[in-house]
Amino acid sequence: MTTAYNRIAGQSVERLAALSDGIFAFAMTLLVLDLRVPAMEVVHSEHDLWHGLAALSPRLIMYMMTFMTLGIFWVGQQTQLNHLARSNIRLSWIHIAFLFFVTITPFSTALLAQFTAYRVALLAYWLNILFLGSALYLSWGCATRSGLVKDDIAPEVPAAVCRRIVTAQALYAFGALLCLIGTRWSIAFIAMVQFYYVLAPRLSR
Amino acid sequence: MTTAYNRIAGQSVERLAALSDGIFAFAMTLLVLDLRVPAMEVVHSEHDLWHGLAALSPRLIMYMMTFMTLGIFWVGQQTQLNHLARSNIRLSWIHIAFLFFVTITPFSTALLAQFTAYRVALLAYWLNILFLGSALYLSWGCATRSGLVKDDIAPEVPAAVCRRIVTAQALYAFGALLCLIGTRWSIAFIAMVQFYYVLAPRLSR
Amino acid sequence: MTTAYNRIAGQSVERLAALSDGIFAFAMTLLVLDLRVPAMEVVHSEHDLWHGLAALSPRLIMYMMTFMTLGIFWVGQQTQLNHLARSNIRLSWIHIAFLFFVTITPFSTALLAQFTAYRVALLAYWLNILFLGSALYLSWGCATRSGLVKDDIAPEVPAAVCRRIVTAQALYAFGALLCLIGTRWSIAFIAMVQFYYVLAPRLSR
Amino acid sequence: MTTAYNRIAGQSVERLAALSDGIFAFAMTLLVLDLRVPAMEVVHSEHDLWHGLAALSPRLIMYMMTFMTLGIFWVGQQTQLNHLARSNIRLSWIHIAFLFFVTITPFSTALLAQFTAYRVALLAYWLNILFLGSALYLSWGCATRSGLVKDDIAPEVPAAVCRRIVTAQALYAFGALLCLIGTRWSIAFIAMVQFYYVLAPRLSR
Repeated sequence: MTTAYNRIAGQSVERLAALSDGIFAFAMTLLVLDLRVPAMEVVHSEHDLWHGLAALSPRLIMYMMTFMTLGIFWVGQQTQLNHLARSNIRLSWIHIAFLFFVTITPFSTALLAQFTAYRVALLAYWLNILFLGSALYLSWGCATRSGLVKDDIAPEVPAAVCRRIVTAQALYAFGALLCLIGTRWSIAFIAMVQFYYVLAPRLSR
Repeated sequence: MTTAYNRIAGQSVERLAALSDGIFAFAMTLLVLDLRVPAMEVVHSEHDLWHGLAALSPRLIMYMMTFMTLGIFWVGQQTQLNHLARSNIRLSWIHIAFLFFVTITPFSTALLAQFTAYRVALLAYWLNILFLGSALYLSWGCATRSGLVKDDIAPEVPAAVCRRIVTAQALYAFGALLCLIGTRWSIAFIAMVQFYYVLAPRLSR
Repeated sequence: MTTAYNRIAGQSVERLAALSDGIFAFAMTLLVLDLRVPAMEVVHSEHDLWHGLAALSPRLIMYMMTFMTLGIFWVGQQTQLNHLARSNIRLSWIHIAFLFFVTITPFSTALLAQFTAYRVALLAYWLNILFLGSALYLSWGCATRSGLVKDDIAPEVPAAVCRRIVTAQALYAFGALLCLIGTRWSIAFIAMVQFYYVLAPRLSR
Repeated sequence: MTTAYNRIAGQSVERLAALSDGIFAFAMTLLVLDLRVPAMEVVHSEHDLWHGLAALSPRLIMYMMTFMTLGIFWVGQQTQLNHLARSNIRLSWIHIAFLFFVTITPFSTALLAQFTAYRVALLAYWLNILFLGSALYLSWGCATRSGLVKDDIAPEVPAAVCRRIVTAQALYAFGALLCLIGTRWSIAFIAMVQFYYVLAPRLSR
């Protein structure tokens, strides 16, 4: 009975993509709510305003990092969905779980930005990244096993998608492990990995 | 006069789907605004931070429940809209009402999470779920009666859609009735039903 | 020089529709942020909770009214855009102005709900509705004059669209005028008009 | 290895457009959160309410300016994306950077509105506009160099797109330079430029 319904449910890749874009858009802009214009009372000169803005820079950087991290995973999810002919209910739920961790990312980034010296914060951040990566990995597995992938994709695509996720997650895990030396080593390494993924397409030219 | 306009109004399933995805995206991420990073002043050790995060866990679970509930209804609405060739103004209004209850869901979930022992909170939550289900039921009735359904759908689809809504709502109503014994029985049963709907597609393999 | 650019700019109806759906989704859910769960401290019995929820009902009703008003204009805009083959930059700007008034609607509705006896609040609300209607009217004029409308639309469509906007705005203006007798007459009349537009498609069957 | 993935990643213009519409929708409505209905306690007459609303007018104007600025860049981005057959990962990242500056725009506009006499505020605003324009310029360069542009575009399009960006940025830069005389000259000039871009399509008829 449930099976009959499940065979027809959640088949639209377009709807999945549209919900994802909405949720990514919201999650990516969430931290901008914390950027508040300096109060008029404390600003009496250009210098004061400059200082007020400089005081906001840690938040701005944290916001940029979240935007970048979510951008990486948005590109990753998009690349998968672009190769799918249709979805099914199992894939839909994997992506709903993925989107849940997307919406948590601003929180865990803010946590890490505020408690840079704490392993608990680093662990929470890494778990977030790990769940995002795992969801994408499961999604691709589900898509290839259930025959949801388009017929005309290039033969190297499936392996490239898997390899990318595994490589990235291995690097993130290594970064997380660096917290045994010090959490700042972890943060620096993870940030480097993310910058690499953003800039690589431009450098590789 | 109005009739002439109503015959041409609200015919786009795509627009309905896009508005729905926007509203679902917003409603699903709404409760993440309540997840605030622990204040720096109260955290002096890893242990404190761990405690601070543990104190957030009820909110996180509530957020997950809302995300899951809305995920279930998103899949349900999507499944219907996927089978429609076009919309009409009556169907549009049924879905606008549906979306209203979607946006109320974070509120009623938060209400229930805060007042787990109160029948009024349980009733409010159940009414929310009931209205969501009823809107989907009315929507399918309107779609089939007005000939909005695609020509090539499999013959078992209409019955499967109805049966799914009726079964789910019967289970939710039974869960709500359990509050005569105790509201926590209700909550446990309803949560179980929702987990079942999320996990069934994976188990049924 | 500018003309060359303007001939190629803003031609996508799909993008206009997608931006609109995003902005409508946000504006329609904005007032739900004001629905806060009653504080635990003031609730000691089922009765207290019931009272706490009853105290929220004016906000809930105001939220429903906004949702309904925006629903009406969403259907109106959708109906126009569904009949367009393409957009141009002039039409895009008319709709950006339209969307500006969409985002102001929650504010002006909240203003009217809080100051039901004040003509200034009624005037602000009515101006909002008037600007929304005028933008749609200008949009249709621009679309028909610039040949943006699809070739295969039924001959009665253009007149039906105009008539609908003019009739509705005449009714709203009459409602606003009723404030000479008393603002509550205005509010009752305008609410009635809106209910009529929502329910008419169902009654007309 | 990374190259293989990068060749298949981020190819969907539709997803890029959908994410952009979501982020624009959110950024454009962000400042409406600051429009709060006057408190009931301070309003005892029509006159008080009128004053209360008049006191909101600077915020309303600032909100309109943000809406307009973002509208200009939304049209600009849309015009580019409309002419693309597909995207690639480099273009995706240019647009993610563009969207970052889109979400910052409400902040920098609010900053300028509050500190109209401060060059630091003007500089921050101008940098924001400059980054938006530069991202669009880079995007068009990337699209034409990488062969992402549709085959059937009119021959004058590429030049018109570039010229528009360069002209606009030159005008904005001149406006920013006017702050050597006084920041209000800058603001007036920049506002004039923006009004021109909004109204030009209507005047040019």
